[in-house]
Amino acid sequence: MAQESSQIAPRYLTGDKAGLQEFLAKFDVFLFDCDGVLWSGDHLFPGTVETLELLRNNGKQVVFVTNNSTKSRADYRKKLEGLGIPSTVEEIFSSSYSSSIYISRILQLPENKRKVYVIGETGIEQELRSENVPFIGGTDPAYRRDVTPDDYKKIAAGDESIIDPEVGVVLVGLDFHMNYLKMALAYHYIRRGAVFLATNIDSTLPSSGSLFPGAGSMSAPLIMMLNKEPIALGKPSQAMMDSIEGKFKFDRSRACMVGDRANTDIRFGLEGKLGGTLGVLTGVSSKEDFVSGDVRPHAYLDRLSDLLGSE
Amino acid sequence: MAQESSQIAPRYLTGDKAGLQEFLAKFDVFLFDCDGVLWSGDHLFPGTVETLELLRNNGKQVVFVTNNSTKSRADYRKKLEGLGIPSTVEEIFSSSYSSSIYISRILQLPENKRKVYVIGETGIEQELRSENVPFIGGTDPAYRRDVTPDDYKKIAAGDESIIDPEVGVVLVGLDFHMNYLKMALAYHYIRRGAVFLATNIDSTLPSSGSLFPGAGSMSAPLIMMLNKEPIALGKPSQAMMDSIEGKFKFDRSRACMVGDRANTDIRFGLEGKLGGTLGVLTGVSSKEDFVSGDVRPHAYLDRLSDLLGSE
Repeated sequence: MAQESSQIAPRYLTGDKAGLQEFLAKFDVFLFDCDGVLWSGDHLFPGTVETLELLRNNGKQVVFVTNNSTKSRADYRKKLEGLGIPSTVEEIFSSSYSSSIYISRILQLPENKRKVYVIGETGIEQELRSENVPFIGGTDPAYRRDVTPDDYKKIAAGDESIIDPEVGVVLVGLDFHMNYLKMALAYHYIRRGAVFLATNIDSTLPSSGSLFPGAGSMSAPLIMMLNKEPIALGKPSQAMMDSIEGKFKFDRSRACMVGDRANTDIRFGLEGKLGGTLGVLTGVSSKEDFVSGDVRPHAYLDRLSDLLGSE
Repeated sequence: MAQESSQIAPRYLTGDKAGLQEFLAKFDVFLFDCDGVLWSGDHLFPGTVETLELLRNNGKQVVFVTNNSTKSRADYRKKLEGLGIPSTVEEIFSSSYSSSIYISRILQLPENKRKVYVIGETGIEQELRSENVPFIGGTDPAYRRDVTPDDYKKIAAGDESIIDPEVGVVLVGLDFHMNYLKMALAYHYIRRGAVFLATNIDSTLPSSGSLFPGAGSMSAPLIMMLNKEPIALGKPSQAMMDSIEGKFKFDRSRACMVGDRANTDIRFGLEGKLGGTLGVLTGVSSKEDFVSGDVRPHAYLDRLSDLLGSE
């Protein structure tokens, strides 16, 4: 999809009471990226809870949008709760949920090709179950083993003891138990015609103040082997925006995406033609990125809680 | 490196006795790709042994060049022997050996940064030992386990119980026991300044008449995470040609590369400025690839044993 960015400089709203009021009045729905906006790692930013309360008290719909595929919405709600942020499962939109919605409601799979071969953890499995999508792989211990000489022969021959002929989708998310066998099976299912989906393609996962392999690192070998990109369901993919709209039925012109990363969060909102995008400087992108980068938000703040200055 | 190809059509030598004699007379050294040239899978092509005998009887040096990194030269000689091909360890050049030579003789590593963190199997370990290169990782069972919450903290902090400060090289080959922990460690070593090497970057591995994840699939996640390519030691990398020349001290103008794949084997010979390149049609590339593709050999044959027609 072509990249669209507002080519005018974004408006700096920190400390601008009238500007904040005007901005907030334009929107009914706020989509939030989480890490880098509401918290960082395990550290909740001061004022996050009060800011969300302000928005809700003013009748705004709040949606938490996360590319984290290892957690289900229920898991993620527990995480929010653990950080002290009140939320409901209905307010959460994860890439595992987005993927399940995409498979169950958007992909038109033939009757005998409705099974999903999963690379990933329990979050994906929970969300597939919630949409009644049959799947194999995932956390099944049968796939957590070394490859054997017999596997090569059976996989190459399409032996049904290891290749399920009903698999029509390969869904790749972050899998802490990735191995050679799982990779070989994913490759062969896609070669045999399965749709190649990825929950998200973030190459890294922030943890302990550093970076570790992310969901994109699970897709990378398959992309190289197949010379083919997956349909990615996380931000900034518009498949995720379509899923969110399908669920919340909101007016895009009255929605605002809030995020710390120009290239994923802000792009996600701009390409989705939302009425607004709001950058915050508590995460990855810098003021310079927002003000003179390729992808610019409509407005930006030093920190999310500066929205409290509208009162 | 810029791609060089002979832009004139290659000479078809099958059945052309005078042409074959003239071609053979030009070279003292023949470098052979193996699978697709001498055999396919476990099937030895008829005439392979006689053809090699003909070359040796005419005083030609024969070198077997393989990107297979899981085997040492000694292992590979056993494989050749098992197929009925007489050979010596000295005639074999594998990407694991090439990598070891590159690390021990070409890379200038600081005194306290000489350890190699290995992703790969025993072939790499054997060749590193033969060059007295210290290493960790590889087939060590300590690395064949799930990642723990403690690992994230220790890796992020550079804790010496898990991050060896003497590691100055990460060498990535085909590893049938690849896992999340190994990938995370490789990523962190490279971020901390280790040289990123790959035995080879073939994305797939032929087996059982089909394709499976190859050594390149092990590097793919790291390439994506680091946005950085490894120095690759296998064909068509000229680092491998330099290693071969370093060992055999041959005159490049009197050497010929024989292979079935235009994009790796033939390119390897052309970019290495060898006197000749010879394509065979018993593997991946087609007559059309050789005759009108981007990378064309100097000559081609239906099959290697057509060289016997020179007698």
